[in-house]
Amino acid sequence: GKLPFCAMGVSSVIHPKNPHVPTMHFNYRYFEIEEADGTKQWWFGGGTDLTPTYLNEEDAVHFHKTLKEACDKHDLKLYPKYKKWCDDYFYIKHRGERRGIGGIFFDDVDSPSKEEVFQFVKSCAKAVVPCYIPIVKRHCHDSFTPEEKLWQQLRRGRYVEFNLVYDRGTKFGLLTPGSRIESILMSLPLTARWEYMHTPPESSKEAEILEVLRNPRDWVH
Amino acid sequence: GKLPFCAMGVSSVIHPKNPHVPTMHFNYRYFEIEEADGTKQWWFGGGTDLTPTYLNEEDAVHFHKTLKEACDKHDLKLYPKYKKWCDDYFYIKHRGERRGIGGIFFDDVDSPSKEEVFQFVKSCAKAVVPCYIPIVKRHCHDSFTPEEKLWQQLRRGRYVEFNLVYDRGTKFGLLTPGSRIESILMSLPLTARWEYMHTPPESSKEAEILEVLRNPRDWVH
Repeated sequence: GKLPFCAMGVSSVIHPKNPHVPTMHFNYRYFEIEEADGTKQWWFGGGTDLTPTYLNEEDAVHFHKTLKEACDKHDLKLYPKYKKWCDDYFYIKHRGERRGIGGIFFDDVDSPSKEEVFQFVKSCAKAVVPCYIPIVKRHCHDSFTPEEKLWQQLRRGRYVEFNLVYDRGTKFGLLTPGSRIESILMSLPLTARWEYMHTPPESSKEAEILEVLRNPRDWVH
Repeated sequence: GKLPFCAMGVSSVIHPKNPHVPTMHFNYRYFEIEEADGTKQWWFGGGTDLTPTYLNEEDAVHFHKTLKEACDKHDLKLYPKYKKWCDDYFYIKHRGERRGIGGIFFDDVDSPSKEEVFQFVKSCAKAVVPCYIPIVKRHCHDSFTPEEKLWQQLRRGRYVEFNLVYDRGTKFGLLTPGSRIESILMSLPLTARWEYMHTPPESSKEAEILEVLRNPRDWVH
């Protein structure tokens, strides 16, 4: 039977040209459905996460700290819970790697009350600019080598793998009749690269970020 | 419960640098499973298909004609059936486009007899070189513009979309515990590109191939 629903959200993905400026993604959304018996369900979902080409610990701490502060204003339990949810969600199973160094992610949140969840989601949304823009400003004039650009392109290949194989929003979108494909696939990078059996040398900067993607760290306590 | 199975196959994908040389893919495979009651099932599957960046009708006819000849030696019903199966299989639903201009595709073939199907599959496999190499030779020294290279990269983005979202072999592979990821994802191109709202101008060479991808043609009668 039909299930009347109403969905709304805002999403943005920024894939910078400079490999020293990380990719950032956020999405905040609200759903309402009316069940067969007339019961109305509603929930919020969303998150903000960072995908660097190279690890910069100062950036990672700043990003997570800013998100934690936004969460802590509402409930001290939220950041640890949603930080872990983010690490679990953005997992590229066939690679054994996360898409990036995480952030926060949550879905199906319908308590304590619609107003309180809305206030929380607004705090998260307001944290997007302060968690990301200082990182952009710090690195947008960094010089980079062709090798660094190449590693960025390989990481973008992984980003494509996650979004097309695992991402719920993408799958939901592609399966929704009449959905706007260009809006759904705008999350893909302009360019990406795949190389057979590419393994970065031990102790390289490339191996360093891979290690964090395989074993997520706690950036703030 | 466990279902003992044995699978073997050979796959190859060639993504040429020159946009006037089409991408070619073939895969021929054999499966055997033993059901709980001890019954043994076996079947062959496979196919060969072409993904040009630009339409060249002479190439398309040569490719399909060579495959048809390989099929016709066994049964005149095979080429039309497997040509349609190929057009249906390599369909990127969310784009309303096929991945390429097709070829042949079949799966679960277990009749008339194991020996006869094996002879048919061998004919198909032997047709790979004669259906593709003349096309490579004809175009590998063609000059090309940066705009043609860009269109190739956008088409490769679609190739990635098909393989990661729809391809059975890729899905089966990614879900098989202990499978070799590098062997499965070797089908992806070295590089690919996505552009928001890219639409080629009417009557352009780019629009010409899109039209064929949206409405597959019969190349041989």
